[in-house]
Amino acid sequence: MATTHSVEAGALAGAASSRDTDLQDLIEELRIPSISTLPERRQDCLRNAEWLRARLERIGFKTEVVDVIKGGLPVVVADWNGRPGKPHLTIYGHYDVQPPDPMEEWKSPPFEPEVRDGLLFARGAADNKGNHMATVKAVEHLFAAGGPPINLRFLIEGEEEISGESLPRYIRANGSRLKTDAVMIWDSGLDDDGNPTLRTALRGLLYVELHAQGAAVDLHSGEYGGNAPNPINTLARIVGELKDRHGHITIPHFYDEVVKPSPDELADWKKKDARYAETVKRLSGAKVLEGEEGFLALERYGSRPTLDANGIVGGFTGEGKKTVIPARASAKVSMRLVPNQDWKAILSALEKQVQELTTPGVEIKVEMLGAAPPVTCGVDHLAAQALRSAFKVAFGKETALVRQGGSIPVSIDFQEAVGAPLVVSGIAQADCALHSPNERLLVDNYHRGIEAVIRFICKLGE
Amino acid sequence: MATTHSVEAGALAGAASSRDTDLQDLIEELRIPSISTLPERRQDCLRNAEWLRARLERIGFKTEVVDVIKGGLPVVVADWNGRPGKPHLTIYGHYDVQPPDPMEEWKSPPFEPEVRDGLLFARGAADNKGNHMATVKAVEHLFAAGGPPINLRFLIEGEEEISGESLPRYIRANGSRLKTDAVMIWDSGLDDDGNPTLRTALRGLLYVELHAQGAAVDLHSGEYGGNAPNPINTLARIVGELKDRHGHITIPHFYDEVVKPSPDELADWKKKDARYAETVKRLSGAKVLEGEEGFLALERYGSRPTLDANGIVGGFTGEGKKTVIPARASAKVSMRLVPNQDWKAILSALEKQVQELTTPGVEIKVEMLGAAPPVTCGVDHLAAQALRSAFKVAFGKETALVRQGGSIPVSIDFQEAVGAPLVVSGIAQADCALHSPNERLLVDNYHRGIEAVIRFICKLGE
Repeated sequence: MATTHSVEAGALAGAASSRDTDLQDLIEELRIPSISTLPERRQDCLRNAEWLRARLERIGFKTEVVDVIKGGLPVVVADWNGRPGKPHLTIYGHYDVQPPDPMEEWKSPPFEPEVRDGLLFARGAADNKGNHMATVKAVEHLFAAGGPPINLRFLIEGEEEISGESLPRYIRANGSRLKTDAVMIWDSGLDDDGNPTLRTALRGLLYVELHAQGAAVDLHSGEYGGNAPNPINTLARIVGELKDRHGHITIPHFYDEVVKPSPDELADWKKKDARYAETVKRLSGAKVLEGEEGFLALERYGSRPTLDANGIVGGFTGEGKKTVIPARASAKVSMRLVPNQDWKAILSALEKQVQELTTPGVEIKVEMLGAAPPVTCGVDHLAAQALRSAFKVAFGKETALVRQGGSIPVSIDFQEAVGAPLVVSGIAQADCALHSPNERLLVDNYHRGIEAVIRFICKLGE
Repeated sequence: MATTHSVEAGALAGAASSRDTDLQDLIEELRIPSISTLPERRQDCLRNAEWLRARLERIGFKTEVVDVIKGGLPVVVADWNGRPGKPHLTIYGHYDVQPPDPMEEWKSPPFEPEVRDGLLFARGAADNKGNHMATVKAVEHLFAAGGPPINLRFLIEGEEEISGESLPRYIRANGSRLKTDAVMIWDSGLDDDGNPTLRTALRGLLYVELHAQGAAVDLHSGEYGGNAPNPINTLARIVGELKDRHGHITIPHFYDEVVKPSPDELADWKKKDARYAETVKRLSGAKVLEGEEGFLALERYGSRPTLDANGIVGGFTGEGKKTVIPARASAKVSMRLVPNQDWKAILSALEKQVQELTTPGVEIKVEMLGAAPPVTCGVDHLAAQALRSAFKVAFGKETALVRQGGSIPVSIDFQEAVGAPLVVSGIAQADCALHSPNERLLVDNYHRGIEAVIRFICKLGE
């Protein structure tokens, strides 16, 4: 049996000598218009799943296209357990893509991939075919050089762009059988400076709706103004008080369990913060950013929890004036949570606080609309260390440790049902036009990505 | 020429001996379905105006049916200036009525008046034909007894129920010519205990809409939460802070000019407050009333200003959850004002305060949607004293001094364009089913009302 070192050398040599083939294989997958949201593209999605399955089977995997939900899109599952006693890595990706609209803005057709100025233009080039093909090709080169030094599983779903339930259900139904040493969620990319990245944590979510009821019926403000409870006034005051004007959330014990970012993260964020804040201002069109005082914008993005009203409605909202004191008003309020906040504890603290903040004539009910725990990825476990070291060689740069403000739902499924450390990253450059016309992938990053994955897997096998 | 005393005696004797005729004359007017809001009833409205004009002409007035606005409903104007040097009284009423729906709830047809158990049932019996016919009949009896001791003008409009502009425009265009010593706004009635009433003041109104703008576009709360200004949070905080949880309005100098109620009023309200509060609770279905701490419910109704949000909207208001930070939110906020608050001063204080309460990233614009000054009627001027004394004899009860929480728009036109003291009252009993099925007038009160108006006019002529 080849040593890990010789396999790595062989695979890297193979990758270096077959750049054209590697790119052509990606282009072949990009020609399949696997748009999960369009029923008329269902056959294309199924064809893409089969295309991946066949390729992984050919490489040496035991493969299956698994229909989890009737009428849903299947999960491509590929297993190789040729290294008993060695670590096991699970690689996640998705074969479905966003619709290409608006079509007229594409300079070349979205499903006729074209390389211009070192960029490969096609729908899915970055999100996620370029990403998962870099892992598939890396593994293929490892097999050609004698076989990967670790055990591997691919889980490539077809419902990422439509928030489908097939993969989550598959993971939760097969949790114990899917035992693995690390999950590689390979669906993102580099930062604005072209540094490879590693997600250290993803924020969670607690989403509630507050329902306020005052009088039994709408009242005339001339007759009742001064005596009638007003659910809008009270609800507005509550929403206003849940987060004060300094961005501080007032729910008791809300911040108690918040984990501080690591010194590494903080040092990195300090350097980048001014430019990040400028980018947020530019993208949002906000004249001034607002957030918790005393924290960097990057801390407020990733390592601090926040609370936002997402919607509010009550009373007369038409044109002009109506002198009504409404009977009801409601507001949707959500919190982004960070490790180690517990949404259940926060929900009960919120329910209690809201009852204290309301006024005697206004009854408030808290309806829970959804919750997702925050996800901690870690940067010090073996897989994270291996990836950082692989990135350093393949991209010639240190890995930026970044937080993600939103959640990646499947990461919660993996964390809760499988329990292994997560490495969340990818190879798309920051300006890849994700979900937009002229989506593109830097061809050089694709090849560097293949190299990085080869080095990562071999590092895990040491 | 007959003395005031002999005229009064003669008129009272005439009223006492012609109760049937007086009632039949009211019934005659009630048979006209003068529903101003229904175009198909326009001819009936015009017929009612002409009916009133002819009656007043016959009595001795110089009359005119004045078309103020093309397509509008005319104002009946009747003048008698037979007492040069003597006071002048203007009597206001309206000949239009509300639609009778729902028809099936009427026990007798709304335009076929019927007396049952001492009550006259018909649409308009209380609002306002019973009221204005009591004044017309009183004046008729005075003419029969030698002529009223003062000069008189009737202004009876046909657009009260549709908030039409004909009479306001007529008053404002003829302000100086309409010089008068008192305006009798005769469109209300007795209190819950059957006491005659006199409005001491009517609240005014300032109605604004607050428009809040944060980022230029709606944003994803995962990506931007923590850094994006949130116009709902900020607007809610502002609305919440404009009136605190103790019912105190925080606009600077808001209460500076508020006139305290008279000792008479306060003494009266103290007696009635508990029952009034119970009534408000019952009618509104509110479990607990809310208002400015330290004041009676009746003070909060009539003599204290208030602030209510009438509507609020922003962000996602559909079913379920959407993790959006919206770009915009808006709230309608109105204030009921009391003498001597100045809505212009309050508007500028509010505009300034809102700019101080907003957060750096949220721009707030204050749009003025409407304003009406509070109206002071007074209880000590000659006309008020005369009416209180007349009520005391005719109804055998003291006059309750009441505030009105809402405004009567035409009173502002009179106050601003004519400038004379107002007496705002009427003869409808409290349970007259105004605007509802089975509207009714206590027949006895109609005759007492005729007597009261005879005594009132003669008192003014002393």
